[in-house]
Amino acid sequence: MDAQPDRIAQSITRITKLVFPQDTNPIGTLYGGTALQWMDEVAFLTATRFARCQVVTVSMDRVDFKVPIPQGAIVELIGEVTRVGRTSATVRVQIMLENARSGEQKLAIEGHLAMVAVDDDMEPIPVDPGARLA
Amino acid sequence: MDAQPDRIAQSITRITKLVFPQDTNPIGTLYGGTALQWMDEVAFLTATRFARCQVVTVSMDRVDFKVPIPQGAIVELIGEVTRVGRTSATVRVQIMLENARSGEQKLAIEGHLAMVAVDDDMEPIPVDPGARLA
Amino acid sequence: MDAQPDRIAQSITRITKLVFPQDTNPIGTLYGGTALQWMDEVAFLTATRFARCQVVTVSMDRVDFKVPIPQGAIVELIGEVTRVGRTSATVRVQIMLENARSGEQKLAIEGHLAMVAVDDDMEPIPVDPGARLA
Amino acid sequence: MDAQPDRIAQSITRITKLVFPQDTNPIGTLYGGTALQWMDEVAFLTATRFARCQVVTVSMDRVDFKVPIPQGAIVELIGEVTRVGRTSATVRVQIMLENARSGEQKLAIEGHLAMVAVDDDMEPIPVDPGARLA
Amino acid sequence: MDAQPDRIAQSITRITKLVFPQDTNPIGTLYGGTALQWMDEVAFLTATRFARCQVVTVSMDRVDFKVPIPQGAIVELIGEVTRVGRTSATVRVQIMLENARSGEQKLAIEGHLAMVAVDDDMEPIPVDPGARLA
Amino acid sequence: MDAQPDRIAQSITRITKLVFPQDTNPIGTLYGGTALQWMDEVAFLTATRFARCQVVTVSMDRVDFKVPIPQGAIVELIGEVTRVGRTSATVRVQIMLENARSGEQKLAIEGHLAMVAVDDDMEPIPVDPGARLA
Ligand SMILES: CC(C)(COP(=O)(O)OP(=O)(O)OC[C@H]1O[C@@H](n2cnc3c(N)ncnc32)[C@H](O)[C@@H]1OP(=O)(O)O)[C@@H](O)C(=O)NCCC(=O)NCCS
Ligand SMILES: CC(C)(COP(=O)(O)OP(=O)(O)OC[C@H]1O[C@@H](n2cnc3c(N)ncnc32)[C@H](O)[C@@H]1OP(=O)(O)O)[C@@H](O)C(=O)NCCC(=O)NCCS
Ligand SMILES: CC(C)(COP(=O)(O)OP(=O)(O)OC[C@H]1O[C@@H](n2cnc3c(N)ncnc32)[C@H](O)[C@@H]1OP(=O)(O)O)[C@@H](O)C(=O)NCCC(=O)NCCS
Ligand SMILES: CC(C)(COP(=O)(O)OP(=O)(O)OC[C@H]1O[C@@H](n2cnc3c(N)ncnc32)[C@H](O)[C@@H]1OP(=O)(O)O)[C@@H](O)C(=O)NCCC(=O)NCCS
Repeated sequence: MDAQPDRIAQSITRITKLVFPQDTNPIGTLYGGTALQWMDEVAFLTATRFARCQVVTVSMDRVDFKVPIPQGAIVELIGEVTRVGRTSATVRVQIMLENARSGEQKLAIEGHLAMVAVDDDMEPIPVDPGARLA
Repeated sequence: MDAQPDRIAQSITRITKLVFPQDTNPIGTLYGGTALQWMDEVAFLTATRFARCQVVTVSMDRVDFKVPIPQGAIVELIGEVTRVGRTSATVRVQIMLENARSGEQKLAIEGHLAMVAVDDDMEPIPVDPGARLA
Repeated sequence: MDAQPDRIAQSITRITKLVFPQDTNPIGTLYGGTALQWMDEVAFLTATRFARCQVVTVSMDRVDFKVPIPQGAIVELIGEVTRVGRTSATVRVQIMLENARSGEQKLAIEGHLAMVAVDDDMEPIPVDPGARLA
Repeated sequence: MDAQPDRIAQSITRITKLVFPQDTNPIGTLYGGTALQWMDEVAFLTATRFARCQVVTVSMDRVDFKVPIPQGAIVELIGEVTRVGRTSATVRVQIMLENARSGEQKLAIEGHLAMVAVDDDMEPIPVDPGARLA
Repeated sequence: MDAQPDRIAQSITRITKLVFPQDTNPIGTLYGGTALQWMDEVAFLTATRFARCQVVTVSMDRVDFKVPIPQGAIVELIGEVTRVGRTSATVRVQIMLENARSGEQKLAIEGHLAMVAVDDDMEPIPVDPGARLA
Repeated sequence: MDAQPDRIAQSITRITKLVFPQDTNPIGTLYGGTALQWMDEVAFLTATRFARCQVVTVSMDRVDFKVPIPQGAIVELIGEVTRVGRTSATVRVQIMLENARSGEQKLAIEGHLAMVAVDDDMEPIPVDPGARLA
């Protein structure tokens, strides 16, 4: 029987953030690089919880920034495993921008990161903890 | 009709964190002060989402640190409004420590913060957005 | 003969800080969580100097934030041991807010933290260095 | 006459960095997200110097991380404009990893960021300062 | 009558710090640049308290680093006005290194910074608040 | 034959920085202490690349701050070895302030730091890698 859907659900990771002045450029909107770092942080936590071992980022797909995110905004980052390989898993990260008045969220930025499970020598190992025991 | 239960549910705030070396003391466990700052951050976001206006912390109840939280640990902070006053709300914050192997969470630290809704002159205003419009 | 009063006097710890934009919320007043972190930092240093070994925070009593502390303010934090147990000591931390014109200080925030002396395995040890040698 | 090649040459931006413990994961290698943030920082400076006005990141192409970058390593980031559009320019960023013994550099990470010149209302404006005056 | 000695005494500024891993180089000793920044911070606070207006650093005298300061060390920085000019004052800053066992302090680093009192247009103004009123 | 001129040229280090709000005082100009820290950082990297071993700062000459550096400015720091001793080398660091409109650079701050090559026990060793092998 397959515990994978459960493990995917359990590894969904949420981080709510307030956009601080130090995160923004002189016009007062979030730096792309700060957004990318946050996305990697969420992907790292999601993949770590999924793989239950050390993981590293091996690639990040193209990311488009169509929506400026103003200082003072509340955003929620959500990471979810969307593809499971042998030693790698892909995590989709979404940055939801929250409307201050209504509380409604809309998708502002989305990215996909490939994360590889590694041992202490940086050698790829099975991303499925069960497969490591077997 | 009462939208409050909904608003409480919608304002529940989750932040997953990895405990970094810079968050820990020389024995490698999380500083109490870092934990307190994280708890205030979650309470601030929870209350902001609930009140949909500026909030400030007016008190934090006694906090006990019974479980050391080691460097490298994954913790999840969860903030939830547990009491609604006229201009203030109480937020309970829990820090869940996650077992690296099993993924199970256990409660490590809990605290209650009173947050007050304020206007730009730091004057208390109703914490319920509906009451502000009325 | 008792060297304790001396050791208490010698371990009094002062930290002067300027309140930076990154320490404040959008209305420009110090976050409660930043104040709590500063208080733990001072308590940690006070207790370390008193015990001359590793210490950890085991509890923080209720803290009230009655006075907003504006960005740009100068504050002085003062930590002093107020109770000595066998393996723990209580540190009172005061945050004094300084008037920019007159230089007068008034008490803005006060808290009490229980700190425990520990060895490298996080086992409590006597907080009195003399008792550890004996 | 075309001053563009000159302006491209003048806007080449170099940042040398030491990889600190706080930039690395528990195995001691640089986080992908930190690398991505550094790349955006260099692209932002390169494009700002080229456009001589405010710029924002509108996309980052796929980035592959084939080479781990260890704590303590010295890296040099180099940003250069490689395509000039009407309101946007593409910046290629390279992260060169330096051999501690020989001082030789090899390309570790490469990315391309599209940067848009904007006014204070976040409206796209010509990326060529000459065209803005005309 | 001269209130200056009092104002000098009242502006003496103490900051106790723990040397964190992120403050140190790979051999585990404090960076010179971090020490210099701390010294400027203390000088800035000392001069601000003395002048009770905005101040800027106009020079720092030669500083020698003869004593390495190890990670985990407790240091106390002490700033004191040692010369008062018309628009400037000199602040002597001492970094005392504390012996972990005995609590004794020895002078590790000393520097002198010239600080100028300025108005909002960065024009020098009398450093003595009395002279500004006169 | 003497490889030194080459090694000096190869170790020239450039760091471009944007001056952020958190780097500036309430009037919006760069803190002297932040400038000093940046200068040590560049000197450290320059000397590390020159010596190809661990280095520490042993002194910084007098530094004058005649030019305020405003928030939002782009500055380029340039480090170059200007004197080579047996176990030490002097690095001259220049902070160039860039005109936002014309891109022209003018020298804003200059300093000289003596850096010593050390082994893991903080004992001085030859700063010339060739001499260490001999
Ligand atoms: C991660 C790393 C150990 C993988 O080593 P490798 O020799 O590429 O290993 P493999 O070819 O066996 O591939 C391992 C897995 O990664 C995947 N992978 C490798 N390169 C990839 C890429 N560019 N994009 C997406 N997936 C990739 C493979 O498909 C394979 O997945 P699978 O087992 O699920 O099929 C190595 O690439 C590395 O050390 N990269 C640096 C990681 C890092 O430090 N990131 C942050 C840089 S700042
Ligand atoms: C940048 C922004 C103002 C552009 O607005 P827009 O309506 O897309 O503008 P346009 O369609 O007129 O495009 C402007 C330029 O950007 C380019 N562009 C737009 N979207 C792009 C994309 N996804 N990838 C690459 N280039 C893109 C266009 O080709 C055009 O370039 P050109 O003038 O050189 O031909 C808008 O997309 C925006 O505000 N994005 C958010 C930027 C941001 O905050 N980034 C950080 C997020 S954390
Ligand atoms: C501070 C500043 C406004 C002074 O302006 P100025 O034209 O030099 O002013 P003055 O010549 O009238 O000198 C003002 C005071 O500074 C003193 N001073 C000036 N240069 C000095 C120096 N290099 N070293 C020590 N003192 C100096 C003068 O002696 C005078 O003091 P006094 O009134 O007590 O006699 C100007 O130098 C400046 O803006 N500097 C940059 C400050 C800064 O931004 N520092 C951080 C840089 S990262
Ligand atoms: C660097 C250190 C190991 C040198 O030890 P030392 O006993 O002074 O060594 P030496 O007397 O043999 O001098 C070594 C070199 O440093 C130079 N030096 C020593 N003191 C110096 C000073 N104050 N200014 C400039 N150069 C100095 C010597 O001229 C010699 O250079 P050379 O070999 O090129 O002729 C020692 O001073 C030290 O540990 N200092 C602390 C370094 C530090 O931690 N810095 C950051 C502090 S926050």
